Amino acid sequence: MGLFVHKYGGSSVADAGKIVNVAKRIAGVHESGHQVVTVVSAMGNTTDELIDLARTVADEPDPRELDLLLSTGELVSITLLSMALRSLGYDAISLSGPQAGIRTDNAYGRARISEVDPARLQHELAKGRLVIVAGFQGLTPDEDITTLGRGGSDTTAVALAAALRADRCDIYTDVEGIYTADPRVVSKAAKLSEVGYDEMLELAAAGAKMHPRSIELGAVYKVPIYVASSFTDAPGTLIQQPSDEAPMEDRIKVTGIAYQTNVAKVTVCGVEDKPGVAAALFEPLAASGISVDTIVQNTSADRTTTDISFTVTSDDLPQTLRQLSSMEPALSVAQVISDSSLASVSVVGSGMQNTPGYASRMFRILADGGINIDMITTSEIRISCIIDREQAHEAVRLLHRGFELDKG
Amino acid sequence: MGLFVHKYGGSSVADAGKIVNVAKRIAGVHESGHQVVTVVSAMGNTTDELIDLARTVADEPDPRELDLLLSTGELVSITLLSMALRSLGYDAISLSGPQAGIRTDNAYGRARISEVDPARLQHELAKGRLVIVAGFQGLTPDEDITTLGRGGSDTTAVALAAALRADRCDIYTDVEGIYTADPRVVSKAAKLSEVGYDEMLELAAAGAKMHPRSIELGAVYKVPIYVASSFTDAPGTLIQQPSDEAPMEDRIKVTGIAYQTNVAKVTVCGVEDKPGVAAALFEPLAASGISVDTIVQNTSADRTTTDISFTVTSDDLPQTLRQLSSMEPALSVAQVISDSSLASVSVVGSGMQNTPGYASRMFRILADGGINIDMITTSEIRISCIIDREQAHEAVRLLHRGFELDKG
Repeated sequence: MGLFVHKYGGSSVADAGKIVNVAKRIAGVHESGHQVVTVVSAMGNTTDELIDLARTVADEPDPRELDLLLSTGELVSITLLSMALRSLGYDAISLSGPQAGIRTDNAYGRARISEVDPARLQHELAKGRLVIVAGFQGLTPDEDITTLGRGGSDTTAVALAAALRADRCDIYTDVEGIYTADPRVVSKAAKLSEVGYDEMLELAAAGAKMHPRSIELGAVYKVPIYVASSFTDAPGTLIQQPSDEAPMEDRIKVTGIAYQTNVAKVTVCGVEDKPGVAAALFEPLAASGISVDTIVQNTSADRTTTDISFTVTSDDLPQTLRQLSSMEPALSVAQVISDSSLASVSVVGSGMQNTPGYASRMFRILADGGINIDMITTSEIRISCIIDREQAHEAVRLLHRGFELDKG
Repeated sequence: MGLFVHKYGGSSVADAGKIVNVAKRIAGVHESGHQVVTVVSAMGNTTDELIDLARTVADEPDPRELDLLLSTGELVSITLLSMALRSLGYDAISLSGPQAGIRTDNAYGRARISEVDPARLQHELAKGRLVIVAGFQGLTPDEDITTLGRGGSDTTAVALAAALRADRCDIYTDVEGIYTADPRVVSKAAKLSEVGYDEMLELAAAGAKMHPRSIELGAVYKVPIYVASSFTDAPGTLIQQPSDEAPMEDRIKVTGIAYQTNVAKVTVCGVEDKPGVAAALFEPLAASGISVDTIVQNTSADRTTTDISFTVTSDDLPQTLRQLSSMEPALSVAQVISDSSLASVSVVGSGMQNTPGYASRMFRILADGGINIDMITTSEIRISCIIDREQAHEAVRLLHRGFELDKG
């Protein structure tokens, strides 16, 4: 008997018919003799609809209130799925995030899981029940409701799998797995049957359909994660620690091409070039939960001031600019320039840093395609370029072909 | 500085515009220097829509799951109201039933409040906050979510007023107060400026717009309840202990005419006429939470068996019949007959039982109107007749005129 955590996204439970289908799939796993904990997202576009509803009464809804509002989306989907299972004759019970023991910090809208108390889950599983858990939500020490941010249901699923020491965490979604590039952009993208956590982390952070936090969590707790379609039985992609036994030279160098279209760039011009300036700039942003990605610093011609450029998500741009304008007097900033129409494209693969030539090959492919590079960052397994958003899809296609990932 | 509990029903918060209006009303009370705790129901027809949604996945949704689903309706309205207040510049916070300390038994769908722990409420009020609480919901000792049944938000409001020792509980609704009869049925119905708990209890139980449990609770804890419109500033009706100082003979004998159209009658024919039969019949019904109203027992011609008739709400009829059919073998019942097309009409007034002639006057008015009486019950302050549902409105109009309640 195995213990599996399954996660179904919003498109998989978008209407009553789809919910009944998910119920039948879970029932099938139960009939095979396994224990199942199922995490679900809100139905279809519910979360967006609730945000729109909030904006009908407040231009900037209070984050605590918004989280309590958004948490209702998952309560609707878990109760419907549990009812559907019960009406098929199975003993199911739905649990809200708080009931499932998910404790978080109080960073509303982007809370992080601090702890999972699996007592109630284990109690219900011991009764032979199919347990349905609301993704995306948890409880603060003050007993207020938080949400984990977009994609947080994946994180809920992996956290539960870790806390319950489940055999595997299955993420069912509207795509059949992880591809060498977004199949909607690159028709010749190939599905990966296996991928390591690190490469998947880069693919996820750079635009693939899984939340990076869930991959990190899976890597730390060594939870094998299987990503597959909720609509078909086609084989998906297994994310796990790569086997040490594969011959090193045989490892594929480039795993895939990822992209992200919600990139905004901020340039803070003319700040004094002295120690502590970068810290003074980025500490307040970090404190307000803004995640800064690429950072580039140039010394200006007169060598007494410097320009610092960095990227944030387009969503975070307004708050970033507000923060900066409150800091301007202290930092004696000459000017703040921002551009919210950017994208990033990344070439991802294990061991890339050990093999020279990948970066220059990437720059050559983009140059030949007439695509200008605004900023560049690299990690051990990734090279990313910030480019114009309108050229993002074309860049992905060119890189997929250029790195010989086109199948067939 | 006073402390008031306000309650707004679903029609008062049916859309964003109405929610903003309620926010402004609450802000006005706050500006007058008072503390306010506001209880809200789900927006408009949300609860019915959620029940319909549940029925798309299960013919008979599991009661525990249904309660968790229904509880989301109030979470939406409280968060929107709190956001609206915050966007007007007031420090507001919304609390779910569990967060507001409302503890209940585990009778899903019709839970009773066992206790209110006001600690969190007092903590938020002490911060100078406007507190918005979800009506209709609570938490069991096992930390599961319950709902209090239809009209339960009134009960939530009065329970909070009692626990907080509030000066008054204001119930804002879509009618301007309590009338001598339903103004939609009787055009000449007059608004009551004051009414005692007992009479209101009968008016509520017999069809007026307030949940009887909230009146009972108000009577026990001596919470003055003010019922008024959320849309106008017209004076409403104050429900409180009648003053002992009013000259007894001046008290109006008939307060109003009430009716209820969801009455079903069940007749259990040919049960053995021996001690314990009625208990054997009604104990299982009570245990499954079915509330039995009027009960009449006739001895049949042969004197060895008896017929027992009783009324339940039409909603409870299917479950009542299922219960009875499972009991039939043990009770050796000859036949069960049911009729779900009935109504009750009631004449309500204080001290009616001490004044002869009211019952016969009621029967005469109905007889002259060609309305047949099926069953009769009386209490200290009420005489009720079960009649055909199609004649209910006509009966209310005739009684309102006959007891000289028509105004003008």
